[in-house]
Amino acid sequence: MKLLLSEEIGFCYGVKRAVGIVDKLSTTHKVKTFGPLIHNPQMIEKLIAKGVDIADEVIKDDCKLVIRSHGVGPEIYESLEANGVNYVDATCPFVKNAQNFVKAKDRENVPIIIFGDKSHPEVKAVMSYAKNVIVVESIDQIDKLPNFEKVAVVSQTTQSKRLFQRVILLLLDKASEVDVYNSICGATEKRQEEAARLAKIVDIMIIVGGKNSANTKRLKMVCSDYCDKCRHIETVDELKAEWFGGNSIAGLVTGASTPDFIVDDIIERLNLWFGRDLSIECLN
Amino acid sequence: MKLLLSEEIGFCYGVKRAVGIVDKLSTTHKVKTFGPLIHNPQMIEKLIAKGVDIADEVIKDDCKLVIRSHGVGPEIYESLEANGVNYVDATCPFVKNAQNFVKAKDRENVPIIIFGDKSHPEVKAVMSYAKNVIVVESIDQIDKLPNFEKVAVVSQTTQSKRLFQRVILLLLDKASEVDVYNSICGATEKRQEEAARLAKIVDIMIIVGGKNSANTKRLKMVCSDYCDKCRHIETVDELKAEWFGGNSIAGLVTGASTPDFIVDDIIERLNLWFGRDLSIECLN
Repeated sequence: MKLLLSEEIGFCYGVKRAVGIVDKLSTTHKVKTFGPLIHNPQMIEKLIAKGVDIADEVIKDDCKLVIRSHGVGPEIYESLEANGVNYVDATCPFVKNAQNFVKAKDRENVPIIIFGDKSHPEVKAVMSYAKNVIVVESIDQIDKLPNFEKVAVVSQTTQSKRLFQRVILLLLDKASEVDVYNSICGATEKRQEEAARLAKIVDIMIIVGGKNSANTKRLKMVCSDYCDKCRHIETVDELKAEWFGGNSIAGLVTGASTPDFIVDDIIERLNLWFGRDLSIECLN
Repeated sequence: MKLLLSEEIGFCYGVKRAVGIVDKLSTTHKVKTFGPLIHNPQMIEKLIAKGVDIADEVIKDDCKLVIRSHGVGPEIYESLEANGVNYVDATCPFVKNAQNFVKAKDRENVPIIIFGDKSHPEVKAVMSYAKNVIVVESIDQIDKLPNFEKVAVVSQTTQSKRLFQRVILLLLDKASEVDVYNSICGATEKRQEEAARLAKIVDIMIIVGGKNSANTKRLKMVCSDYCDKCRHIETVDELKAEWFGGNSIAGLVTGASTPDFIVDDIIERLNLWFGRDLSIECLN
């Protein structure tokens, strides 16, 4: 049995940065994150075990408040300032770029389309930077949009590049001018490409990451275009020996907020089950 | 033998408008056009026969000077004003839109990419509205472009929509923000779609229009993707009876600056050759 790992494994830049900020702060301060820092329950548990709490609202106390990687809207910053809260911003820099673009277009009074999931905290925050915003959740919604003289468009950072490209081309039939901000995260895009390459050549794809993680769910969608047997798991405990046949090839990809220790657990378990029959390689 | 005509035949809106302006003016004034009014030599001959001259430079005389459908750069307007020339602007309104977009982006200091033919008068005029302009003539040139923080992009109005779409998607790998102005003329686009539909079902395609007409040449390119026998002719004198077999189906499309009288000549000639064996239908 062979296990093929994608090259990009574990935390992406934005998640690594956010976790690093909290780790460093927690050595000197009592830390709270404003909502769960990242979309990985196991990593959140680890942080809680270290004494990092989760705050649901802006309250001034003796803690350092950390804004999570998905970002927040301008009303939260205003409230933080107004209440004199001691805070650190761990918003992913790529999400911040999208927020800044939306803010700039709002100032120009250009209507804005966000391609993403309305209920996702990243999208919720980005959309709150403008008044005239439409969230498009699927391609077939474009047809129902009105025509525009000019429209701006951004995407949730974890969207599929291929779908975002289709959105752009369809919008060009709806508007004379389309101002596109390419907000898809390069690392997310690379993970999706690697996942597709892996899914084409393996018997089973193991997708590891939070069940609430948009980029992990997206990886599963990408893989299921090419591989019939895709399993999205959060931890090693969901892994089943019977998924793997004698001579099978398994692929493994992780979401951008999946900590390395979960991957280590999985490899350890596979080694335990298959021992010398298992070879591990990296996709190249 | 069957002749299938495309639905859009003869002058497009911009050409009809330009010819109309000259026709009307020439009843009351001596008229000169600044360069040939449209890219159709036979129509230009007709205008010359009516007494409409072609001017190569801005000179003040007792004529009304008409700016042709392809438009001119800002330096020409300045020269017209400075010399007190009596002129009328017959620039195609869709070309004007592209000029205005380029002018606006130049004011914002955004670099501009024009997808089109560098030597075409429309592109020459549009590009003169900005300082920081790159003309991209083919898809493979995109790869050699530098990376941009932000870039604006327009197309020659007669470009293929499919190619312009590819340009946009490739630019999104080169720039964080791509501001697209959809400058492809809707009528040109419709003609290309109809030409492709026709080319798929006929034995021979007759493409009628100026040999110097960009949109007519584009129609031939589109047709040759689907039909092996494509003939671009300017006038009935180039038509050959041996092109048409006994039971063949011929398709006919025209460029946007092809006058109706040339199409009438062709139909008359085919009637002369094939008489009752010829049926004429319109694509629907």
